[in-house]
Order: sequence, then structure tokens, then C-alpha cells
Amino acid sequence: MRYGVLGTGVAGRTLGGKLVELGHEVTLGSRTKDNPVALEWAGSAGGGAAAGTFAEAAASAEIVVNAVAGQVALSALEAAGADSLDGKVVVDVSNPLWFEDGEVRLSPVESDSVGEQIQRAFPHARVVKSLNTVNCAVMVDPARVPGDHQVFVCGEDAEAKAQVTALLGEFGWPAERVLDLGGIRSARSVEMWLPLWLNVMRTFGHADFNLELRRAR
Amino acid sequence: MRYGVLGTGVAGRTLGGKLVELGHEVTLGSRTKDNPVALEWAGSAGGGAAAGTFAEAAASAEIVVNAVAGQVALSALEAAGADSLDGKVVVDVSNPLWFEDGEVRLSPVESDSVGEQIQRAFPHARVVKSLNTVNCAVMVDPARVPGDHQVFVCGEDAEAKAQVTALLGEFGWPAERVLDLGGIRSARSVEMWLPLWLNVMRTFGHADFNLELRRAR
Repeated sequence: MRYGVLGTGVAGRTLGGKLVELGHEVTLGSRTKDNPVALEWAGSAGGGAAAGTFAEAAASAEIVVNAVAGQVALSALEAAGADSLDGKVVVDVSNPLWFEDGEVRLSPVESDSVGEQIQRAFPHARVVKSLNTVNCAVMVDPARVPGDHQVFVCGEDAEAKAQVTALLGEFGWPAERVLDLGGIRSARSVEMWLPLWLNVMRTFGHADFNLELRRAR
Repeated sequence: MRYGVLGTGVAGRTLGGKLVELGHEVTLGSRTKDNPVALEWAGSAGGGAAAGTFAEAAASAEIVVNAVAGQVALSALEAAGADSLDGKVVVDVSNPLWFEDGEVRLSPVESDSVGEQIQRAFPHARVVKSLNTVNCAVMVDPARVPGDHQVFVCGEDAEAKAQVTALLGEFGWPAERVLDLGGIRSARSVEMWLPLWLNVMRTFGHADFNLELRRAR
């Protein structure tokens, strides 16, 4: 499969690297063509790895992964170009974090979400919110955390969610640990998990954890 | 111990009932002295159970439990009276839910929380946010859900958090499953868990679940 991964931060490089390792072709997209981080990644990640602009990464892709920060997701996807997103699965793994006086804040929050913003701005893209609830090391290697912990998918398109669930399976998430929370509106709820995730990270002193929903029945 | 439980909803009655069962004296507080739900509860919950106004419930209590809806927490505690809260542990189990067009919303959210509002309004109370992350049946009977799932405490006063942790122990939560998230500001993060909790409840079809944080180390 051909993937366009938007964002050269640790999430984008980790997801891109894992996809290359799995045998996929990946273009890591950034704002500029000569981004040194992207070029270095493309040179070291393996045979299927390339670097390009957001537009190049999206144009060549069958599936687009949004791994830029939530607050710049719309501008990155605009740079990618609506035509290159039409009909495609767009996996949004971002969180709308920003920092104020050393404290983490969320925006949009509660009345909206990045997932919904993307779906509204690109109505012909098939947006699936997923993986934003865990650190990127856990995203691509869930076995590093013990237990039957879970990830979520949110989106309007059932077939797109099935495709993302299959991708999650390649990463090591069994289908029964992928919880479908419904439409893209439920992206709010997984983005609002972040403040608790951050407090738990601070309490544990590391990000190698995840939630397992335990149920009586 | 003498408890004042504010709120005659299912959370207040469930918590009050469990406290009576554990041998404590409980006054279930409501806005009016002749609240029929409170009177019926007091008549059936057992020897230590009484009904009264918010003011009567708080005045006689060593520990106050806020179990009214988050959006009316401040007015209930004002009715209880600042003098009756001074120096006391106030356990806030509420969530600031409201409904709009059939959808659940949260207010305050992200930039504030009910826990912080209460602590600001009653600076001499020792506010501990806890238990709001689970259904009230799970609050008082964690064993109904399998696994080492957790609850949280947030608050400024370490001794107050220790007292609440002891109370949680009486309910069946071992101390190692009570995660201290720090000061009362972290109440935001546990209140913001609610949208995900609600989506999971909708997905599972019941409220008999909780999160277990699984960690690599």
C-alpha cells in the first residue's frame, strides 16, 4: 500500500518507519521539499521511504495519515490539497495541544474536535480518528504495554474504519481491541482523554502505558 | 464517622447507603427539609441514616460528600454554608454534565472544573475530587468489575487525600489502585474523561466498566 504521512515529528517518523518496515511505500510529507529531518528519515528508513511536500505525499498515497500537531492539521491538509484527499482514507492521529504558561491546553475542545474540523473541511475525505490516545511508540508496538488495552476508531465511513482496523492489526492491535465509538463527533471524546493521559504520564514518569477498559459483562 | 451526603439522586443515595452499611452515620442532604426521596431513603437505609437540609447535613458531618450535579454544586454548597465546610474534607464526586439537543455537554470544561470551583469558593474546605470517573454502582462495589482498575484523587491537601483513600478502601478500592494526580487543577482531567466514558457506555450498552491503566514499567 502507498501511504502519505504528513508531519516529520516523532509521531510521523515513527508511524512512517513502521509502515516501511511492514513493506509499504511511504512518503513523509512536510511543508517544504528540502526538510532536512524528512530527507534524513527517507535516507535511513528503508527502501520504501521517500520525502516530499504535503502535496506530494498526499497525491501519491492511497491512505493519508495526519501526524502533524492538531492545531496545524487543517493548514497541512490544505497544503496537501483537497483533490488529493478525495475519496481517500485520512487517518487523523493528532491532538489539539497547545501550551500556556507551561501548562498543556486543548483547542478545539468539547464543542468541536480536530477530527470533525478535518471532515468538515474535506467532506469527500473519509476521515478516521484513531491512535491519538497513546504515545507513538505504543501506536506501532502495542505489545510493549502488557494487557488487552485498547484503541478507538471514530468516523462516518464504516469501510474506512474497517481499513484502519486492518492497518491497526498490522501494527499489532487485534481487531477485538479496536473499539468503534461511532461517528466523527466522537473524536471529541478521544481528544478530551489527553489531559488525563498527560496527568497519568506525569504520575508514572513515562508514556509507556495505555488504558484497558475492564467490563463486568 | 459522621457523613453529610449532599444530593438525593442515585449517586447520593448509593454512596449514603453504602456508608450506612459500613456503620457510619449519614445525613442525606437536599434543598428542602421534607424531600420525599430523602425521607424514604432515611426510613429504609438503616439505623445510621437521616434526612435533612444541605445545611443540616453539612453541619453535623465530619466529612461532606458532594453528590449533586456538577452544575448545581456551588449553590448546594452555599446552601450548606461555608462555616459548616471550614476545615472539613469535601469529597466531590460530581460531573458538570448538561444536555443540549439530546447530546451530553460539559461545562465548565478544560479551563476550569467543578473541583476547582468548589475549592476557590470555599478556600477553607479541603476539597478532594474522586470517584466521578465511574458509575455509582462501581464506586461502592469495585469488585463488580474484574481487573485492577483504578480511581483517582485530586486535591491540594495530602492529609485529606489520605482520608479519602482510606474511605475508598472501605468501599473496596485497595490503596494501590487509587492514583493521586496532584492538585485540584487535575480535576479538569478526570472531569474531561466523561465524554469518553459516555461513548464507551453507549458502545458496551451498560455502565459496569472502568479503566485499568496498564503500564510497561
